[in-house]
Amino acid sequence: MTELSDRIRLLRTQGVTAPAGFRATGIPAGIKASGALDLALVFNEGPDHAAAGAFTRNKVKAAPVLWSQQVLTTGRLRAVILNSGGANACTGPLGFQDTHATAEAVAAALSDWGTETGAIEVAVCSTGLIGDRLPMDKVLAGVGEIVREMAGGLTGGEEAARAIMTTDTVPKQVALHHQDRWTVGGMAKGAGMLAPSLATMLCVITTDAVADSAALERALRRAASTTFDRLDVDGSCSTNDTVLLLSSGASEIAPSQHDLDAAVLAVCDDLCAQLQADAEGVTKRITVTVTGAASEDDAVTAARVIARDSLVKTALFGSDANWGRVLAAVGMAPVPLDADRITVSFNGFPVCVDSVGAQGAREVDLSGDDIAVTVDLGVGSASASIRTTDLSHAYVEENSAYSS
Amino acid sequence: MTELSDRIRLLRTQGVTAPAGFRATGIPAGIKASGALDLALVFNEGPDHAAAGAFTRNKVKAAPVLWSQQVLTTGRLRAVILNSGGANACTGPLGFQDTHATAEAVAAALSDWGTETGAIEVAVCSTGLIGDRLPMDKVLAGVGEIVREMAGGLTGGEEAARAIMTTDTVPKQVALHHQDRWTVGGMAKGAGMLAPSLATMLCVITTDAVADSAALERALRRAASTTFDRLDVDGSCSTNDTVLLLSSGASEIAPSQHDLDAAVLAVCDDLCAQLQADAEGVTKRITVTVTGAASEDDAVTAARVIARDSLVKTALFGSDANWGRVLAAVGMAPVPLDADRITVSFNGFPVCVDSVGAQGAREVDLSGDDIAVTVDLGVGSASASIRTTDLSHAYVEENSAYSS
Repeated sequence: MTELSDRIRLLRTQGVTAPAGFRATGIPAGIKASGALDLALVFNEGPDHAAAGAFTRNKVKAAPVLWSQQVLTTGRLRAVILNSGGANACTGPLGFQDTHATAEAVAAALSDWGTETGAIEVAVCSTGLIGDRLPMDKVLAGVGEIVREMAGGLTGGEEAARAIMTTDTVPKQVALHHQDRWTVGGMAKGAGMLAPSLATMLCVITTDAVADSAALERALRRAASTTFDRLDVDGSCSTNDTVLLLSSGASEIAPSQHDLDAAVLAVCDDLCAQLQADAEGVTKRITVTVTGAASEDDAVTAARVIARDSLVKTALFGSDANWGRVLAAVGMAPVPLDADRITVSFNGFPVCVDSVGAQGAREVDLSGDDIAVTVDLGVGSASASIRTTDLSHAYVEENSAYSS
Repeated sequence: MTELSDRIRLLRTQGVTAPAGFRATGIPAGIKASGALDLALVFNEGPDHAAAGAFTRNKVKAAPVLWSQQVLTTGRLRAVILNSGGANACTGPLGFQDTHATAEAVAAALSDWGTETGAIEVAVCSTGLIGDRLPMDKVLAGVGEIVREMAGGLTGGEEAARAIMTTDTVPKQVALHHQDRWTVGGMAKGAGMLAPSLATMLCVITTDAVADSAALERALRRAASTTFDRLDVDGSCSTNDTVLLLSSGASEIAPSQHDLDAAVLAVCDDLCAQLQADAEGVTKRITVTVTGAASEDDAVTAARVIARDSLVKTALFGSDANWGRVLAAVGMAPVPLDADRITVSFNGFPVCVDSVGAQGAREVDLSGDDIAVTVDLGVGSASASIRTTDLSHAYVEENSAYSS
């Protein structure tokens, strides 16, 4: 539990079912050969059904992204169905039909259960290997089963969080309780192909606050821009990135936009830290902060160039205070900087001042799990941070044998 | 030996001393703790001394780059002094003084030997770890020794090529003999921090053709733009990249600009292939070709995005035909493409047609050392290729322990 302020607290033992009005669970539908959990449902009982979404900026978008973007134009959702074990990306028109059929099946099952639902109220998210069709017999049978289980009272946010894992080693969820008696809950997955414009991830955030889709949209857009958009494990942006925010209004409390923004930001930030800590092959959690930039956009750009540099990432894997690689990397960033006035520090220790090495720079202890790299460009007062990880043998190992 | 045409042939057993009018050698000056060769000299006996250069586009430039850029504004060079064992980058005004002192020492030693030379006629190149001052006592003593050895008749292009090696495992040199009795020779180093705007490398090319600095400049700019600028091992651009082209005119043959362009291009292309084959941690030589682009610039941009993608590179290290990662990568390229009409082939076998997987795609044999990745964007007729390598355990190993 983290005390963020007197008014809110965060609990990682709860997730999307923490807010009133939400049910969720996860089951093994047989999509994954391993028999692990692979199908999740998040259901909004209402009374409200407002929703907002943010999606990958990749031009190559998976079928479920194309579907869910359409669905979200209505600003409302009753349910989100999510599967791991296959991304349903690069599967053509037939893959899109599979997504549509899945949403139809969820709507039909929920209607049978007594909640009249249209496919247009069901978002679909998929994650896993790109390029293969999903085993639709298993997906559709799973949809029937998961709605029955949920209707029967079985509900578990953690099972849902587990069912969307791919190379993740732990489920990621968090709940924020506001003292005004409203709650925001969230779950996320993502470990590799984790980069800007949302990182590679699926994330569902729920709240029982009373908020319309415009308010949710604003809170989500603001939060994503400084959290998921600034997580960059390997510079690779997925075809399936999706973040959804649903409100049930069940608390009957309508927080101010400011409070809603802050709560959604805190949940996104915490989920980001969890994604970073469980990234593929991670041995170091690295935060690259650029200060002294001409604008915040420049700071983000420069920090991202450093965070993506293979030589910086391998050096930090080796706990090697090779600050020259940081200078070589930032020197290629397409932003204004003073090449003779760059300052770099590792974990607060200045290793390079005015672009020249500082005394003792190579002896800085980087053996811990967390490394803070701070780079001052010397041209302004704006700053920003990117979360990343090191480039390790484990990353290479995991990613040289993923599809086989 | 490669027969490029009836009129020219390439020999990798020769380098910068193949053209008439050039001497070169390499010695161990004690800059490297290992005692390996670490100081090289290339000397142009004339009668001409025309020269052109191309340098890193990194905003953070090493002292020898700043010096040599100034020197090259004259369009002439008598000598190039090169050292490994230290990049003399991020060393501030004192590092620049070291470079200047090195050029002065070379000029003085050559003048003592009877060739009146000014420091302004001496280019300096350095490579190695960023951030440390060079051991100037050793450098200056080495300068005296290397000029004496060369004056005494000792000349060896291969020793020079060996003396500039850092993590390179083999020297890289080549000579092109034109049937009209003029020659172009070259040597290069570079294995990591190898990326656009010249790759990370030092390269000296010599010719006994009669050509003024404008002709050399044009030939070098054209050749570099399609060779060194399209070699991208790890996306990291060095602070020290330098390519120099010197002509002695000793053949007394003045080739057409067309023939000179073609010869310099052939030498640069061959050196690039050698750099790629000896890149840090390389287990696969990969050529990414993008076709069907709206412009050649777009094709280069898209090919580079794919060539830099860690997930594509690790998959190919694993001989894994995971074409979905290629689509995810190219989908982030800032160029026009038709997301439903992308075609990908591995080694000529279509693995993805119209953005959907092809039959047998995952079984394509990628176990060989060379992999050709071809991606058609479906929007135009322009194409370009980027040479890259895989991302292997050896790359991580080598780069997590470089400065220690």
